[in-house]
Amino acid sequence: MRYAVLGTGIVGRTVAARLASLGHEVVIGTRDPRATLDRAEYAEWQEAHPSIGLAAFPEAARHGETLVNATGGRVSVEALTEADAAHLQGKVLIDIANPLDFSQGFPPRLDPVDDDSLGELIQRTFPQLRVVKTLNTMNCQIMVDPARVPGEHSVFLSGDDADAKKAVHDLLASFGWPDGSIIDLGGIETARGTEMLLPLWLRLMKALGHTDFNFHIQTARPSS
Amino acid sequence: MRYAVLGTGIVGRTVAARLASLGHEVVIGTRDPRATLDRAEYAEWQEAHPSIGLAAFPEAARHGETLVNATGGRVSVEALTEADAAHLQGKVLIDIANPLDFSQGFPPRLDPVDDDSLGELIQRTFPQLRVVKTLNTMNCQIMVDPARVPGEHSVFLSGDDADAKKAVHDLLASFGWPDGSIIDLGGIETARGTEMLLPLWLRLMKALGHTDFNFHIQTARPSS
Repeated sequence: MRYAVLGTGIVGRTVAARLASLGHEVVIGTRDPRATLDRAEYAEWQEAHPSIGLAAFPEAARHGETLVNATGGRVSVEALTEADAAHLQGKVLIDIANPLDFSQGFPPRLDPVDDDSLGELIQRTFPQLRVVKTLNTMNCQIMVDPARVPGEHSVFLSGDDADAKKAVHDLLASFGWPDGSIIDLGGIETARGTEMLLPLWLRLMKALGHTDFNFHIQTARPSS
Repeated sequence: MRYAVLGTGIVGRTVAARLASLGHEVVIGTRDPRATLDRAEYAEWQEAHPSIGLAAFPEAARHGETLVNATGGRVSVEALTEADAAHLQGKVLIDIANPLDFSQGFPPRLDPVDDDSLGELIQRTFPQLRVVKTLNTMNCQIMVDPARVPGEHSVFLSGDDADAKKAVHDLLASFGWPDGSIIDLGGIETARGTEMLLPLWLRLMKALGHTDFNFHIQTARPSS
C-alpha cells in the first residue's frame, strides 16, 4: 500500500522505515524538503533508506492511500492544512501524535486536554478524513516492534469509522501486535483518554530511567 | 494503628473494612454522623462492621494517626478544613480520591487537571500533612485485594515525604501488593500523572464492560 508519513522526526522516520520494510511504498511529508535534507541527521537517515521518498506535504498526501500523522501535535492541523484538502478525501489518517506543549518547559503540558483531544480536533477540522488515534502511548521503537518489551502490553484504538479501525488493526498486527493486545476504546472522543496517559508516561520515564516500557491493561475477565 | 477514613462512600467503606480486618482501629469521618446513619445502605453496612466507628470529621481526624482521603475529590479540601488543622499536624494523609467533576454529565472532567492535581492542592493547602497519593487508579475492591486481578499489575506512589511513602508502601504490602508492583513516581507533583489516568480508566470501563482491570507497567529492563 502507499503510505504518506507526515513528520520528519524520530517517530515519523521509525514508522516510515517499518512500513517500507513490510513492502509498502512510503513517502515522508515535510514543509520544505530541501530544508529537511539540509539537516545532517535526516540526510544520513535518508541515505540509509533510499527507497523512502521525501516530498512537500501536498505531494506526500497525494501519494498516500493512508496517512500517518507524526508531526508535532501542536502543528498537526497546520501541516494537514498545507497538505491540501483535496488530497485527504476519504483517506484513513493514523494519528500517533500528542499535543505536547513545551512552551513552559519540562514536563510539557497538554493542549488540548480533558474536554477535547488532538484526535478529535483533527477529525473535526478535516471531516473528509477517517481519523484513527493509536500508538501515541509508547516510544516509537515499541510502536513498530512490540516484542521489544517482553510479556503482554496494550495498544489502543479510537475512531469513528469501523472500517478504518479494522484497517489500522490489521496494520498493527503486521507490526507484531497480537490480536488480544489491541483494545478498541470506541469513537474518536476516547482519544482524550490515551492522550492523557502522556503525563504519567513522562513521569514513568523519569522514575524508571528509560522509555522501554508500555502500559498493559490487566483484566480479570475476558473483554467483551 | 489508628486510622481515620474520611468519606462514607463505597471506596471509604471498602478501605475501612480492609484496615479493620488487618487489626487496625478504624473510625470513618463524615460531616454529619446522624445523617450518614439515616442512609439505609450505610446503616446496613455499619451493622455488618460493628468494630468500625463513625464520627464527625474533627473527631475522626483526632482519632487517626494516619488519615485516608476517600471523600469526593471536589469536596476534599472542604472536608479536611472541617477536620480542624490541629488534628492534621504531622500526620500522613493517604489520598486515594480523584477530582472528578460530574457537573457536565458523564464522562466527568477533571478539575484540577494537567497544571495541578488534587494531591498537590491538598499538600499545598495543608502543609502540616504528609500527603501520599496512591490507589486512585483502580476500583476499590482491587485497591485492598490486588489478587482479584490475576497476573502482574501496578500501583503508584507520589509524595514529597520519603518516610510517609515508606509507611504507605508497607500498608500496601499488607493489602497484598507485591514489592515489584509498587512504583514510586517521585514527588507529589507526579499525582498529575496518575489522576490523568482516570479519563482512560472510565473509557476502558465502558469498552470492557466491567471494572475488574488494572494498569500494569510492562518494562523491558529492571526498574532502577
